[in-house]
Amino acid sequence: MLTNRRDVRIVWGDCDPAGIVYYPRYFEMFDTSTTALFERALGMTKFEFLKAYDALGYPMVDTRARFVLPTRYGDDVAIETVISELRRSSFDVQHRLTKDGKLAVEGFETRVWVGRDPAAPDRIKAKPFPPEMVAKLQGT
Amino acid sequence: MLTNRRDVRIVWGDCDPAGIVYYPRYFEMFDTSTTALFERALGMTKFEFLKAYDALGYPMVDTRARFVLPTRYGDDVAIETVISELRRSSFDVQHRLTKDGKLAVEGFETRVWVGRDPAAPDRIKAKPFPPEMVAKLQGT
Amino acid sequence: MLTNRRDVRIVWGDCDPAGIVYYPRYFEMFDTSTTALFERALGMTKFEFLKAYDALGYPMVDTRARFVLPTRYGDDVAIETVISELRRSSFDVQHRLTKDGKLAVEGFETRVWVGRDPAAPDRIKAKPFPPEMVAKLQGT
Amino acid sequence: MLTNRRDVRIVWGDCDPAGIVYYPRYFEMFDTSTTALFERALGMTKFEFLKAYDALGYPMVDTRARFVLPTRYGDDVAIETVISELRRSSFDVQHRLTKDGKLAVEGFETRVWVGRDPAAPDRIKAKPFPPEMVAKLQGT
Repeated sequence: MLTNRRDVRIVWGDCDPAGIVYYPRYFEMFDTSTTALFERALGMTKFEFLKAYDALGYPMVDTRARFVLPTRYGDDVAIETVISELRRSSFDVQHRLTKDGKLAVEGFETRVWVGRDPAAPDRIKAKPFPPEMVAKLQGT
Repeated sequence: MLTNRRDVRIVWGDCDPAGIVYYPRYFEMFDTSTTALFERALGMTKFEFLKAYDALGYPMVDTRARFVLPTRYGDDVAIETVISELRRSSFDVQHRLTKDGKLAVEGFETRVWVGRDPAAPDRIKAKPFPPEMVAKLQGT
Repeated sequence: MLTNRRDVRIVWGDCDPAGIVYYPRYFEMFDTSTTALFERALGMTKFEFLKAYDALGYPMVDTRARFVLPTRYGDDVAIETVISELRRSSFDVQHRLTKDGKLAVEGFETRVWVGRDPAAPDRIKAKPFPPEMVAKLQGT
Repeated sequence: MLTNRRDVRIVWGDCDPAGIVYYPRYFEMFDTSTTALFERALGMTKFEFLKAYDALGYPMVDTRARFVLPTRYGDDVAIETVISELRRSSFDVQHRLTKDGKLAVEGFETRVWVGRDPAAPDRIKAKPFPPEMVAKLQGT
């Protein structure tokens, strides 16, 4: 499976009155990391691949994060992301956010690939990944 | 154990290009719900009780959320929050976010009560809950 | 012109390491206040009125804010909002955020009512307010 | 005066249901750009220079932004930032956010350099810039 790594500078606006990252911000960073992996695998921006495959995105079904070490503004961290399992229309992602090589936050995601529901245009509906997308996400 | 309920209007800024809540926002809503429960139990705002108990907060150790139904701007949801377990310095919280009485998102948290580390003022350290805080959080 | 008032509790996640509101959050609060005024005038949620009038929203053209007094988590503030001028498709909004009756933040907005560009569905385009919307926003 | 340029990829979580950047996010980007300029001038992270100069930050006094062209997820933009005026304890900053060389958003800030109020430790107070900081921010 494909992996991706992003270097991220923690900024003032990520942090709360305790001076450390406000934890919902880690989920924003992980969401951007999942997208970065897709963009790299598919060679398109998210705007481009949603259009190319007539999709609305990959909303979250289940996510979990473990917070091991705090990080604060000015810290440089790395986020390593891997698609750990790819199914018909759902998939699992794992993130490891490290600071100075030490694990700070670990993230787990189950998402589903969706499009507009043909029967109800206001609603979203799971759709199977196209075969060429599967091949690219598997790095084959 | 004490419970708390908050009514929340989902707003435009909570939502992403798919028109539904950007999931890190649910974690912000849950964080505010945990604080609302503490504020109600202790009869003080978070600013006041952190000061009264010389603490820095209750950062997240582990959190998970399951997304069952999407919600979008204009939706009115309810968030019911309960402290499901209270230990020496850590505790578990559960949230149920419902729309029209149906479960939309379920959240689970393990947090720890912390103060400034006396040995290293730049760092945070777990500290035991004061007995009177325990009594109030248990609703006894 | 119609006015609207919202009571807002400043929360932990609104604040930065200095312990006061991270100023981009005030713009989120003002955006929600502008929407609240529209929703009240039109008797519909934003989701409903965008659909009813086939519009995409009222993106910002120009905005300014003056920060007079800091606010922090636990503070209860009031936001008073008024449409100060309504033109063919653009309009001006003013916000006064007060704490204990004292002005804390003042906001100014110029926005434009937009829909999908018929000539380029990926793009947005200004459109005139429907007369019945004008009447309702003027409170007449 | 010193200038700084940052390249930024607009991401999904920056955007709203209209598919374009939710404007409070531009203020977050500008805040990070102001910090990037200070960090570069001073050769320290914000965490380090606030500590070195015993300060709490540079909260906003007055800010304005003009939105000329929309940007959306997948867009690569550049933000050019300059301190346009530096006074005893307050200063002005200008930002130009461009997409493909065209101006998309223009930002203006007046901020003030603050520390803890010696007379009231819960409050913040303007303080003069140290001369060595002035020299570095002026790029002399």
